[in-house]
Amino acid sequence: MSWFKTELTKKIGIKYPIIQAPMAGGPTTVELVLEVAKAGGLGSLGAGLLEPKEIEEKILSIRSQTSKPYNVNLFIPSPFNRDLSKKDKINQIMEPYRKELKLTNPSLPKHLLPSFEKQVEVLLDYKVPVFSFTFGCLEANLIKKFQSNGSCVIGTATTSEEALALQKKGVDFVVAQGYESGGHRGTFLHKEEHALIGSMVLIPSIASATKTPVIGAGGIMNGKGVLASLILGACGVQMGTAFLCSEESGIIDEYKNKIINSSSEKTVLTRAFSGKLARGIANRFTKEMESFKDVFPDFPLQNTLTRDIRKKAGEIKNLNFMSLWAGQGCSLGRKVPAKEIIRTIVEEINQTIAKKDF
Amino acid sequence: MSWFKTELTKKIGIKYPIIQAPMAGGPTTVELVLEVAKAGGLGSLGAGLLEPKEIEEKILSIRSQTSKPYNVNLFIPSPFNRDLSKKDKINQIMEPYRKELKLTNPSLPKHLLPSFEKQVEVLLDYKVPVFSFTFGCLEANLIKKFQSNGSCVIGTATTSEEALALQKKGVDFVVAQGYESGGHRGTFLHKEEHALIGSMVLIPSIASATKTPVIGAGGIMNGKGVLASLILGACGVQMGTAFLCSEESGIIDEYKNKIINSSSEKTVLTRAFSGKLARGIANRFTKEMESFKDVFPDFPLQNTLTRDIRKKAGEIKNLNFMSLWAGQGCSLGRKVPAKEIIRTIVEEINQTIAKKDF
Repeated sequence: MSWFKTELTKKIGIKYPIIQAPMAGGPTTVELVLEVAKAGGLGSLGAGLLEPKEIEEKILSIRSQTSKPYNVNLFIPSPFNRDLSKKDKINQIMEPYRKELKLTNPSLPKHLLPSFEKQVEVLLDYKVPVFSFTFGCLEANLIKKFQSNGSCVIGTATTSEEALALQKKGVDFVVAQGYESGGHRGTFLHKEEHALIGSMVLIPSIASATKTPVIGAGGIMNGKGVLASLILGACGVQMGTAFLCSEESGIIDEYKNKIINSSSEKTVLTRAFSGKLARGIANRFTKEMESFKDVFPDFPLQNTLTRDIRKKAGEIKNLNFMSLWAGQGCSLGRKVPAKEIIRTIVEEINQTIAKKDF
Repeated sequence: MSWFKTELTKKIGIKYPIIQAPMAGGPTTVELVLEVAKAGGLGSLGAGLLEPKEIEEKILSIRSQTSKPYNVNLFIPSPFNRDLSKKDKINQIMEPYRKELKLTNPSLPKHLLPSFEKQVEVLLDYKVPVFSFTFGCLEANLIKKFQSNGSCVIGTATTSEEALALQKKGVDFVVAQGYESGGHRGTFLHKEEHALIGSMVLIPSIASATKTPVIGAGGIMNGKGVLASLILGACGVQMGTAFLCSEESGIIDEYKNKIINSSSEKTVLTRAFSGKLARGIANRFTKEMESFKDVFPDFPLQNTLTRDIRKKAGEIKNLNFMSLWAGQGCSLGRKVPAKEIIRTIVEEINQTIAKKDF
């Protein structure tokens, strides 16, 4: 059985073609990255929202504990409208929530996101084994720089057109982010609402449109999902929600329980938390904010404006105001160690193949 | 290799677990049903919009040419608002299209849909081998009646909750209609917009939630898609768009070309043509009508009101005003005979399994 010997495992030097998705904002702890690596997968640090110094600390921590490869993911910055009239309007709308959470209107920081250039510097300095990115298409010369520095480079596409654009710039792999995925859409060439393609179609479409090997993502929760993705033409998978529920994931237990007790139709695509379309479990915030969707400022402005609300809600374990990112596969999640998720996938696949009569 | 010996093939007596989807309104010609049957699949007549007399004629034609099983599909009627103020408003909005197509305002027929009871009578009279339905949940006693009459009964679900409801009524199989599917959503327990689950998630979710065997549908276009669906837990697949492009399909050639030359992101979910949410390739009608979506009367009123426009557009091959139903897998479609579609699927699967190292 050589289902796990793919272009991905060979290029990166991992045992199984399974990437734990980079999930920015807390879930991807150093512990999770290490456990996934130890179990034979590729752990990813969702570093898009981390300051260069924090990224450096986490990389040092990972490197001191393993010699296995790991991935660091960044957000490609794009121009946005720093519309201060929208800011005042949305703050007014969110005023009752701040009152309820005993918060005062925060002042806006000068920089809404960490410096991408400085984040990149850290990744180059430490020659990270794998560098993945989303929300855009990196310049060809920077991709080249990473590659000659020894890093494998992975881009994120939500359509074949985006996959072709990434291929043109020279990435080593393309993540095909299906409609089912939790968290933010990586779309960069279309309006996000126009680039919502189910994994059953997106994987074979990108695989047939490009020469760049494809990593399936979106709705893949177990061995069946992994094997199905490989059959559809992927050389590996990237799984977010499954690892979000794992013991080592950095989210609170109440959020994990909410995921596994939800059903696919309880998840929604919303811009309410960040200004960028993302899938999560519907809650009071997504529902009540829906009527103001035309007022939401662009990402990352809206993301910054809701930060204190999300942070406080997390501290007091109030699920009404947290961004409960999760994919449509939520109900198939299991609160087990990350290594158990990988072990079960491998077992399930080996059993399926051994039967030969699926 | 016994991938094609499933609960579906055994129960119905077909060679391959492949159902050509029932597509109402023209595509599912008797010829298509016969060719699919001859090639070892299950052909389906989309009879939801046909008068009992027409259904009888088509069944007689099929029976006179084959002894193989076939499927007839009906729409479960549900209460709707015959809102005549909306009718006048929408007719006013569509007035420029009628002018452009040289049509006059049609009068509304007394009955918007054929009699379901009389359609059912025909199916019972002729003891159709397979009876499938969508848009609702048939009464348990009627399902029983079909089954004791020798018919296999298949329901359509878009969520696990709907699959459980169908199981409770006693259907033999459940079609899991994924978000990627072309044509009308079969949703009956939710708002359609809240029941859009990708096949990668819907198949394993329904398979794990119910004991009723699951038929995957939505985005399945070739051998890879069929095998992936079986691995995800389906006992068979139902393919619409793939057979819609086939030579024997009853749609005009211009429409077939439009499908295979489109990409997934060119399809949209719209209520513009029928009042019920359905996926098709965006055209002038879906785009311009979008701004009036709050005015659309319920299905089947809107469907009846747009009929003359769609019909005339089809006659003069004007793709701007036809309902160009298609799934997200459109670009993977091929204009070949139906038997060639099935032959290629079988070949592709056998090759994949033979390699054993996917």
